[in-house]
Amino acid sequence: MSFADRLAAAVKATGSVTCVGLDPRKAQLPAPIRDAVSGDSPDAWAAAYTQFCNEIIDVVAGRVACVKPQAAFFEQLGPAGMVALGEVIAHARQAGLLVITDGKRNDIGSTATAYADAYLGQQSPWGSDSLTVSPYLGRDSLEPFVEVCDQREAGIFVLVKTSNPGGGLLQDRKTDGQTVYSAVAELVTEFNSTRLGQSGYGPVGTVVGATYPEQLAEMRAELPGSWILIPGFGAQGGGAADVQAGFDERGLGAVVNSSRHIIFAHARPEFKDKFGDAQWLDAVSAATDDMNAQLRF
Amino acid sequence: MSFADRLAAAVKATGSVTCVGLDPRKAQLPAPIRDAVSGDSPDAWAAAYTQFCNEIIDVVAGRVACVKPQAAFFEQLGPAGMVALGEVIAHARQAGLLVITDGKRNDIGSTATAYADAYLGQQSPWGSDSLTVSPYLGRDSLEPFVEVCDQREAGIFVLVKTSNPGGGLLQDRKTDGQTVYSAVAELVTEFNSTRLGQSGYGPVGTVVGATYPEQLAEMRAELPGSWILIPGFGAQGGGAADVQAGFDERGLGAVVNSSRHIIFAHARPEFKDKFGDAQWLDAVSAATDDMNAQLRF
Repeated sequence: MSFADRLAAAVKATGSVTCVGLDPRKAQLPAPIRDAVSGDSPDAWAAAYTQFCNEIIDVVAGRVACVKPQAAFFEQLGPAGMVALGEVIAHARQAGLLVITDGKRNDIGSTATAYADAYLGQQSPWGSDSLTVSPYLGRDSLEPFVEVCDQREAGIFVLVKTSNPGGGLLQDRKTDGQTVYSAVAELVTEFNSTRLGQSGYGPVGTVVGATYPEQLAEMRAELPGSWILIPGFGAQGGGAADVQAGFDERGLGAVVNSSRHIIFAHARPEFKDKFGDAQWLDAVSAATDDMNAQLRF
Repeated sequence: MSFADRLAAAVKATGSVTCVGLDPRKAQLPAPIRDAVSGDSPDAWAAAYTQFCNEIIDVVAGRVACVKPQAAFFEQLGPAGMVALGEVIAHARQAGLLVITDGKRNDIGSTATAYADAYLGQQSPWGSDSLTVSPYLGRDSLEPFVEVCDQREAGIFVLVKTSNPGGGLLQDRKTDGQTVYSAVAELVTEFNSTRLGQSGYGPVGTVVGATYPEQLAEMRAELPGSWILIPGFGAQGGGAADVQAGFDERGLGAVVNSSRHIIFAHARPEFKDKFGDAQWLDAVSAATDDMNAQLRF
């Protein structure tokens, strides 16, 4: 089954459009995980990251559609962290979760093929279901990813309108009335047009931040065949009303990511006293329920 | 000494503006390296990549200014490849070469910090001198890299105008007469303006392809404080005349990358009969001399 159809099936099966962002950071790990780290070696921290993410995965499996490990935090630990990334991806897939590896990779054509192969290919050491990809290098940098998606029933999410305050500097620039992000959307729609699955969606998803609700509505209209990954919910300021425009009339077509608000829920004011560090997984569970409830339209 | 000043010193000391791109690919490795790979494990190939790159480094050290390992090809081998990348970077630095890790990384601010830390930070597992960075996420995605450059005397190279045929799709779009790539250049110039070293250059370099000579001249003028990394020379079609406009009047301000034409020189028609696979390092040496000679203006 194509990635797009698997994502639709996952949303229907779980009744959730939540994507849990797995962004392990040393300083914010709950005390039971952090205190168990022996020494300060990359291997020790990598083991802690694996444990932290895998325990979260066990809590949210069957209750959310997908998880999104952030490559940067694993990369920060060096090769040991990259081993952990692979373990986390494998654990999530075994738990029945779809995996969006957030790497924002890309390069010119022949090198883009290497990235596509690395994360999505037949012999991929990480074996992810999908990968986030940057569009700055244009059409011929995206084609190798689309080809690998075709071969492997994998998916990509192309950056369109990112959630950060400064994203507009390039993305919002208009030429003949069309923004850069809309030009990216046009290309994505073209890629998907010949690749739509039973769900009505194709392999080329997009990233549109929850922090730009107007642009999200605009992009939903311009991207009829594209799953939209919506970051920026929760800690970055986006709320349920801000993301509603990302969905189609069936409640499909978008997944909403929250990282810190779920994985570090034990530190949130509303959960801190009730759960604290000791019961950090109960905080993860409560935050997941809370987000799912907010996103049931 | 700042990265920009170290690069100027390296160009002066070697009399070369050549950057050797280290892009190991299984199928193109010379026979003596490829045939020695036992089995098909990532570890075996990673060891071959390390040997291949390190032998090239030993040949070109003292004769070129810098090397540019391409992360994608190492990533393709999984964590074992990332170990090899670290070994190659360390070997190049020990050999006195400056290292530009080509990862084209970036993300929103707090995650960009993790990437900057991963490749350039105090405790970086890879310990590179510099990193290529994508600008699509705007100013606040670049600031964390610039901060780490300040702390560590490191450098970055921001994608401005890439060498691939499709790069223009977004990069060439004009708003009020200004292209996207020129808007990126403006931001880079601003970052460098308060950070210029004795060489007259700052830590924020740029990438402008040899395949776009007119834009290279334009960017040299708009980027007075930025080292320009010029890919696309050789196998991608750019020649000496195409890159000349990238240099200042002292012959500084740009380094020209060639990957395949140097590292796989044993397969080039002009070297194949003379050296072939058996003497592949002699072919690397001859191709390096050839490129250095072409770029002595």
